[in-house]
Amino acid sequence: MTFPVVGMVGGGQLARMTHEAGIPLGIRFKLLSDTPQDSAAQVVNDVVIGDYRDLDTLRAFAQGCDVITFDHEHVPTEHLRALEADGIAVRPGPDALVHAQDKGVMRAKLSEIGVPCPRHRIVRDPADVAAFAAEGVPGGAAEPGDGFPVVLKTVRGGYDGKGVWVVHSVEEAAAPFRAGVPVLAEEKVDFARELAANVVRSPHGQAVAYPVVESIQTGGVCDTVIAPAPDLPEELSARAQQMALRIAQELGVIGHLAVELFETRDGRVLVNELAMRPHNSGHWTQDGAVTSQFANHVRAVLDLPLGDPRPRARWTVMCNVLGGDYPDMYQAYLHCMARDPQLKIHMYGKDVKPGRKVGHVNTYGDDLADVRERARHAADYLRGTITE
Amino acid sequence: MTFPVVGMVGGGQLARMTHEAGIPLGIRFKLLSDTPQDSAAQVVNDVVIGDYRDLDTLRAFAQGCDVITFDHEHVPTEHLRALEADGIAVRPGPDALVHAQDKGVMRAKLSEIGVPCPRHRIVRDPADVAAFAAEGVPGGAAEPGDGFPVVLKTVRGGYDGKGVWVVHSVEEAAAPFRAGVPVLAEEKVDFARELAANVVRSPHGQAVAYPVVESIQTGGVCDTVIAPAPDLPEELSARAQQMALRIAQELGVIGHLAVELFETRDGRVLVNELAMRPHNSGHWTQDGAVTSQFANHVRAVLDLPLGDPRPRARWTVMCNVLGGDYPDMYQAYLHCMARDPQLKIHMYGKDVKPGRKVGHVNTYGDDLADVRERARHAADYLRGTITE
Repeated sequence: MTFPVVGMVGGGQLARMTHEAGIPLGIRFKLLSDTPQDSAAQVVNDVVIGDYRDLDTLRAFAQGCDVITFDHEHVPTEHLRALEADGIAVRPGPDALVHAQDKGVMRAKLSEIGVPCPRHRIVRDPADVAAFAAEGVPGGAAEPGDGFPVVLKTVRGGYDGKGVWVVHSVEEAAAPFRAGVPVLAEEKVDFARELAANVVRSPHGQAVAYPVVESIQTGGVCDTVIAPAPDLPEELSARAQQMALRIAQELGVIGHLAVELFETRDGRVLVNELAMRPHNSGHWTQDGAVTSQFANHVRAVLDLPLGDPRPRARWTVMCNVLGGDYPDMYQAYLHCMARDPQLKIHMYGKDVKPGRKVGHVNTYGDDLADVRERARHAADYLRGTITE
Repeated sequence: MTFPVVGMVGGGQLARMTHEAGIPLGIRFKLLSDTPQDSAAQVVNDVVIGDYRDLDTLRAFAQGCDVITFDHEHVPTEHLRALEADGIAVRPGPDALVHAQDKGVMRAKLSEIGVPCPRHRIVRDPADVAAFAAEGVPGGAAEPGDGFPVVLKTVRGGYDGKGVWVVHSVEEAAAPFRAGVPVLAEEKVDFARELAANVVRSPHGQAVAYPVVESIQTGGVCDTVIAPAPDLPEELSARAQQMALRIAQELGVIGHLAVELFETRDGRVLVNELAMRPHNSGHWTQDGAVTSQFANHVRAVLDLPLGDPRPRARWTVMCNVLGGDYPDMYQAYLHCMARDPQLKIHMYGKDVKPGRKVGHVNTYGDDLADVRERARHAADYLRGTITE
């Protein structure tokens, strides 16, 4: 049977779970991984070990793949353009992906198409940060330091809170400039909570929107996702979904697009970040939606009709499992399975390091408090922060 | 992390789907496969190509596995005993598995423990078959041919209707004896329908029972499974589940046990066949149960706590996708996805041959007629027997 081959660049857990979702679809999977020990490399048959920053490696890898897609946003844009010039289907393509790679490009584009964002601009140095801060003070800044705190981000390479600083003064603003890369300043939004509007779009233009979820972060790292976002007004939910669908279309995204949002206290939604791949805020879909984000990502990059994104349960909650002090989680894992036979555990095969994402759990049901407690308990128990 | 390694003997679709279910569990999977093209060999990282009939191959394969389990029942019993003698955890073990390998041993054991079976005995030759047929006639046979038809089965090696004959005369009874292997005669049960009671049992004795399903066969091959079996009286359902749990316990089964049953027109259930591995009658659990048969098989063979076997939908229907005249199903597969965004397709990566099982589809919902129609349509469309 001439079923296609998906080439996945990057061997992390997103690649692992995309492969898992591709198995029932009958899709062949080829992986470009840094090491044979990477999360996905453990479970995929056709693994190439190599460096995604090397164009020759990418070119050789792409031979025999019907489409190339990604576990992360770190492949240099110019390499993606070179692959496209070779005639290789790169999905999402470099013109879309650059918006997930470069926060400056992303902010400029979203502003251009009228998508609400936090106030922002590229800043040159700490004095420019102070000027940016002052610009946010109604009537103008009276004293140095007015308008702080400000959020500074390197335009490329950040994730999970890395490459992001919240600075309270011009002195604190020095650090982000030390790397010599462009820095984006953003207002620190006084948000009520964080949401994510996730959509999937295919080359022939079909798109589906998952329910808008609430994402609870701890220390810049996603901790809990609740699907759907509790008490979200229908109008706001529809607005967020339409915004995500519009971004996907305007930016030409193919595959899964996560639009991370701030819900402000006055009922607005502002775009925080974009990710053009399966995303932590969509892990709940594995057990909570008719079609998971991973299955729909595969379907989209192959231009297959998309699957139903609707939820299968009233509530689904995902909690990330972070590494704790105990390198071996197996006994805790066994305990969690015994305590909750309905618990859905997803382990990534990664070595435990404190704070590292090594898995996640999903729970679902009709009673949100119960569903949350079960997920929270399992994540805490696996991490070792509770023992009963 | 010291998560265990499951060694799977056999590279068919059951191994493929067991690997898929093991990925989220963080379980390492090692496969012994006949060829690199086998269904599971396409999707597993650690594949050994070798012959499961060779003890040395099995012994070498078992190195580095924490437990050995099976995609099929064809590994010689004496090899399994040798592996056990080496100290290797073989699950299910040879003392249990022999009941799924040898229909004579199975019938003897089930009769011994009082489980209702069709009338049966080992027969020596066609004349003995005629005698067996006559024994089934109330008051004794008056003429030659009375008591026919009779079902004849080779005690080892049959599957999907192979190794099974329905004979209507002493002349027809000659064929099964030509292979020189023992032959079991059974009464031809006038059943109302076929059911399957599937259970999973772990070494520490925990067991779970899936809902009893109806299994519809065409030409000796499973065609459709409906979960739960429609209009099945609760008492009969409970009796079938208890019977399956008792068989698992009495035979010492570890892992998934499928008990294929005849439901007679007078409200009895008789055991037809046993399978000690994930089974076609349990494929619906992938999309229709909280925990799939594959995940629970992995959990059982590792002696992990078992997952909840309860259904997630009112009705789930599985239809097998058989190969038809068209070697390439990709266009039909695309059409089925477009027609039914809720359809769950499971392809095995196998070359299409007429009548060969190359995949299955699952559908679920509240309306049985609709759920059946959707699954039936997709299976027929993929096979090519309908074109709209």
